[in-house]
Amino acid sequence: MLGAMMNRPLLISSLLEFAVINHPGTEIVSRRVEGDIHRYRWSDAALRCARVANAITRLGVKPGDRIGTLAWNTYRHLELYFGVSGMGGVLHTINPRLFPEQIAWIVNHAQDRIIFVDLTFLPLLDAVRAQLKTLEKVVVLCDADAMPAGRDDLVCYETLIAAESSTFAWPEFDERSASSLCYTSGTTGHPKGVLYSHRSTVLHAWASLHSGGLNIGRESVVLPVVPMFHVNAWGTPYAAAMSGAKLVFPGPGMDGKSLHELIDAEQATLLLGVPTVWLGLLTYLDSINAKMDSVKHAVVGGSAAPLSMIRAFDEKHDVFLIHAWGMTETSPLGTVNAPTEEVLALPKEERYLRQAKQGRPIFGVDLKIIDDEGQELPRDGRAFGRLMIRGPWVASGYYLQKDSPLTDGWFDTGDVATLDAGNTMQIVDRRKDVIKSGGEWISSIDLENIAVGHPAVKEACVIGVPHPKWDERPLLLVILKDGASISKEELLGFVGKSIARFWLPDDVIFVMELPHTATGKLFKLPLREQYANHLLKQVS
Amino acid sequence: MLGAMMNRPLLISSLLEFAVINHPGTEIVSRRVEGDIHRYRWSDAALRCARVANAITRLGVKPGDRIGTLAWNTYRHLELYFGVSGMGGVLHTINPRLFPEQIAWIVNHAQDRIIFVDLTFLPLLDAVRAQLKTLEKVVVLCDADAMPAGRDDLVCYETLIAAESSTFAWPEFDERSASSLCYTSGTTGHPKGVLYSHRSTVLHAWASLHSGGLNIGRESVVLPVVPMFHVNAWGTPYAAAMSGAKLVFPGPGMDGKSLHELIDAEQATLLLGVPTVWLGLLTYLDSINAKMDSVKHAVVGGSAAPLSMIRAFDEKHDVFLIHAWGMTETSPLGTVNAPTEEVLALPKEERYLRQAKQGRPIFGVDLKIIDDEGQELPRDGRAFGRLMIRGPWVASGYYLQKDSPLTDGWFDTGDVATLDAGNTMQIVDRRKDVIKSGGEWISSIDLENIAVGHPAVKEACVIGVPHPKWDERPLLLVILKDGASISKEELLGFVGKSIARFWLPDDVIFVMELPHTATGKLFKLPLREQYANHLLKQVS
Repeated sequence: MLGAMMNRPLLISSLLEFAVINHPGTEIVSRRVEGDIHRYRWSDAALRCARVANAITRLGVKPGDRIGTLAWNTYRHLELYFGVSGMGGVLHTINPRLFPEQIAWIVNHAQDRIIFVDLTFLPLLDAVRAQLKTLEKVVVLCDADAMPAGRDDLVCYETLIAAESSTFAWPEFDERSASSLCYTSGTTGHPKGVLYSHRSTVLHAWASLHSGGLNIGRESVVLPVVPMFHVNAWGTPYAAAMSGAKLVFPGPGMDGKSLHELIDAEQATLLLGVPTVWLGLLTYLDSINAKMDSVKHAVVGGSAAPLSMIRAFDEKHDVFLIHAWGMTETSPLGTVNAPTEEVLALPKEERYLRQAKQGRPIFGVDLKIIDDEGQELPRDGRAFGRLMIRGPWVASGYYLQKDSPLTDGWFDTGDVATLDAGNTMQIVDRRKDVIKSGGEWISSIDLENIAVGHPAVKEACVIGVPHPKWDERPLLLVILKDGASISKEELLGFVGKSIARFWLPDDVIFVMELPHTATGKLFKLPLREQYANHLLKQVS
Repeated sequence: MLGAMMNRPLLISSLLEFAVINHPGTEIVSRRVEGDIHRYRWSDAALRCARVANAITRLGVKPGDRIGTLAWNTYRHLELYFGVSGMGGVLHTINPRLFPEQIAWIVNHAQDRIIFVDLTFLPLLDAVRAQLKTLEKVVVLCDADAMPAGRDDLVCYETLIAAESSTFAWPEFDERSASSLCYTSGTTGHPKGVLYSHRSTVLHAWASLHSGGLNIGRESVVLPVVPMFHVNAWGTPYAAAMSGAKLVFPGPGMDGKSLHELIDAEQATLLLGVPTVWLGLLTYLDSINAKMDSVKHAVVGGSAAPLSMIRAFDEKHDVFLIHAWGMTETSPLGTVNAPTEEVLALPKEERYLRQAKQGRPIFGVDLKIIDDEGQELPRDGRAFGRLMIRGPWVASGYYLQKDSPLTDGWFDTGDVATLDAGNTMQIVDRRKDVIKSGGEWISSIDLENIAVGHPAVKEACVIGVPHPKWDERPLLLVILKDGASISKEELLGFVGKSIARFWLPDDVIFVMELPHTATGKLFKLPLREQYANHLLKQVS
């Protein structure tokens, strides 16, 4: 027997309509690609979203068609988020950090009909354009007077939407309809497309607002440094529309100086980004001896943050660094280590260790850890196994790919983790990066985070390499800070203080650079190949 | 094109499963009908919910079957919330304040197969039992040694569930399935059944947690005085399971003394109830000259709270009284007047006026006001009209009733309201209670709230009665406090200070009691009949 409740679909357009009726005056501030600061309100944004929907409808876009973007976090990208998905189109956010050949591949795979591009990324698009089979139109996200000269093949965004009506009747449709598409930057094989739905997007926003999630409310000033071109800036544009939070978009200004200016001018309260970005910000603030006053919380995800970063945020800026964990396939929020009174009352160093965990699932997310035979492992904070996830904003498959990635309805995250009795999750390592030494496991992430805590170390990478006796042993690769120097022995002595003896890397190699994926994560595959014989040689 | 996200249904059982995995140690504290305080944890509750599900399954209950409850807010009622709905049954919470003949009517209409009853309400059930056509079993919510002697027709709850397994495989089914049933205590005609679904219940819980809603989190200690027998205690049992808040149930102890003891002992931070309950609590606290220290917010709904109550909570207890508005048909949360930095910064009297409004919709709820021709009226804070509501937790119909109550997909609340430019809603009056005087409208609620602000007045009721010249004029009925006295002229002088001249009631009648509905609201219909000729006589 069904209940007798209204069948109102959960649609992205309803987020926009809610924002414009309930907090029309709330600001959206952007650093533009042109360099200046742009500010307007949801009441202005709504009119331009409607113009976008009318413009692409006139260009023949039908519900379900894919529309690409190559763009920074700005108000124009926001307009495409709501305008394209709202009319039923599928917003395909393209990560400009992918290799050009990957970009060509995913645009063709997605069959994008139109691409909206920031001036910054036009050369990137031009370089692959001849390969793009389905692309009909390129729209440049800039004012008419900033358009490149002599390019009849390009359309100006402002000119395009100026010609349209600022009202649009947002259609109602099945909430499971596709809303957006984001490709994972896999380290092997072709990228895989994660196809979000209106339902998954709205539910994810609801769950993220809670104080056990990102704690976003009407008084929040949210600055997502995490890009709108990857996993929807962790859903913050939707969460802001739902909650009435002020949005501050950094545009292309993701360096420490630009971010600090924006944080200070707009009095941001909540920042979201990856460790690399925070490292840049903290380093810059140190260099000018400045403190962030308005910021209460910074969320870190993408990779684990080292203890030294958690400590620096707290001691220098009185900011609680919140670990969050998720992936493209999970929309992305899976767990959040939101502050609790219990944790805030702990002695500092103990508190930092708690903050280093990835946190608790937000409601909607089920987690379990399993062994290699698929048996569930206990939630005791010690047993670690393959982290499996399930929930209404978790991918059930990939775009145009028939094989299901699921096992009994669960998605394998590729991470190895522990869960404690309160379901707090801590990542041990990526499954492919975990080091198996003489039957025991060693976490490359833990070793990297300890090494990077040394003042001379700029970046650290630990890989497992073949060893004749122990199967695999850890090898530590480090980039030193400019002008710093340290011996292998000193560094191993530093690392050795915090770990069990058998975790100590067998060797240290000083390098000038380390390879990264398009989303900024360490790319260890080529390193494992390069150093495959390193310990075999030493021993022989 | 559909997205490629998991089709995980939103089920009430998933709230329980989340609670037991993510905050197993969080307490649930109840004042029992037996008088003592009972406390246990979600980990304990989950085992007993499973026993309930096994017990009713053994009794032959099938998904969709209706199971009644006549019970206070306690842990046993909570177990039925999750155990019955979780296994697919429909929990029919019966309001014991209905007239016996109404109770018999709704039990027959719902076709309840089993009723779970607190000892308190057993005489009530016994009195109508002969009329109950579908009832197979009565289970008494008490320990075995408290069971009434010589009653072979009754089953003891504790004995029933003790015999069962404490594990149950909660089934997965369509999230639109019915989960619970609550009858409105209509003032005319038969009660009407609102049939909630698993989807509506889970979405409502999500929306209510937000800081723009009830702001319930892991650190909250929530004391719902609002009954679980009516509109699911405003959804707080579900919200607590979702958020990890501690629940404190008052059982039958809803008087000021009992509530104060519980608030103080358990350090409640959030209270929820109707104005009558708060009046009792405030009066008691005054009498012993006590202050509530732990409480941060109290939510008031059901009827509008007078300014004097908002002021007393703030000035005497430093508690922000949050107006919320909703109805049985809206699950019930429609709007919440959650505190904002802007409101908190206002001078006190100005702030109280803002707190007197019913607040902003939580995301998911659409509101509009329309005139008698169905035309939408502006959001300007002045225009008032019929308040229409729409959303995924709003009723689309009534149980076993074919006629749709909707107009173009909107539900008519029966209220008359204003909406301002930020969508803050203020109730003007119930549509049937609004007084039409010479083409202008007068709010009976506003007049009542002003009159009750006089220290001599215990309760006030304003009705519109026929008038030969003005069509209708307001008549003020008051109950004075014990030992208080005041003249008509004095009281009208007091009321007249705060209103436009033409709003002044034409007469004051001192009465000893006023009629109320089963949910504690003023029942004006018989008063309008009784005093229909009051002003006609005076004038003639």
